[in-house]
Amino acid sequence: MKVKSNIWIEKDGKVVLSLWRVRLLEAVEKTGSISAAASQMNVSYRRAWEKIQECETRLGIKLVDTQTGGSGGGGSHLTPEAYAYIERFRKFIAGLDELVSERFEKYFLDEDDT
Amino acid sequence: MKVKSNIWIEKDGKVVLSLWRVRLLEAVEKTGSISAAASQMNVSYRRAWEKIQECETRLGIKLVDTQTGGSGGGGSHLTPEAYAYIERFRKFIAGLDELVSERFEKYFLDEDDT
Repeated sequence: MKVKSNIWIEKDGKVVLSLWRVRLLEAVEKTGSISAAASQMNVSYRRAWEKIQECETRLGIKLVDTQTGGSGGGGSHLTPEAYAYIERFRKFIAGLDELVSERFEKYFLDEDDT
Repeated sequence: MKVKSNIWIEKDGKVVLSLWRVRLLEAVEKTGSISAAASQMNVSYRRAWEKIQECETRLGIKLVDTQTGGSGGGGSHLTPEAYAYIERFRKFIAGLDELVSERFEKYFLDEDDT
């Protein structure tokens, strides 16, 4: 048996940040493009773009900065505000997974034969 | 902003226990019937019955004992094994919600104006 958990942040009853969305934003930064990030996350460009738009609208801040064309060929990067949110979220969830696993082992695996 | 979380247990990649399923089982015990429990959980009898069956099959143990007819009019009750699982699950998740909320406040609400 394995324990699974999910954690996310809502504003007015709507998701504004989740581990998945944070990973998507990190992929945008790493690849420099929303379409490459979408492909890395196994979703369509449209879905990735919509999720980013959703977060931006709900948080009320710009998360991804996209330049089109130019000598560098354009590309997408995270805004400083996005960095700040990602860092907060990562700190927030750090250690929680381990704690959940530890408790799970204590209550479910110690006396269990699976 | 509010933090939300979900936690569940899988076996061979399939859910065997979750807070929702534990609540359903507790409702069966409280009401003495699967249909009353289903109604309390806002799902159809069929869905409640299926979820219980799923848990029983996946865990490999009987969770709900149903008597039909008889002088008491029948009814459903939890087996001792179901009680044991519920107790473990409740102990396992006890305190986790509070911890998540505390961490959330620390990382998101302290510096935030929402």
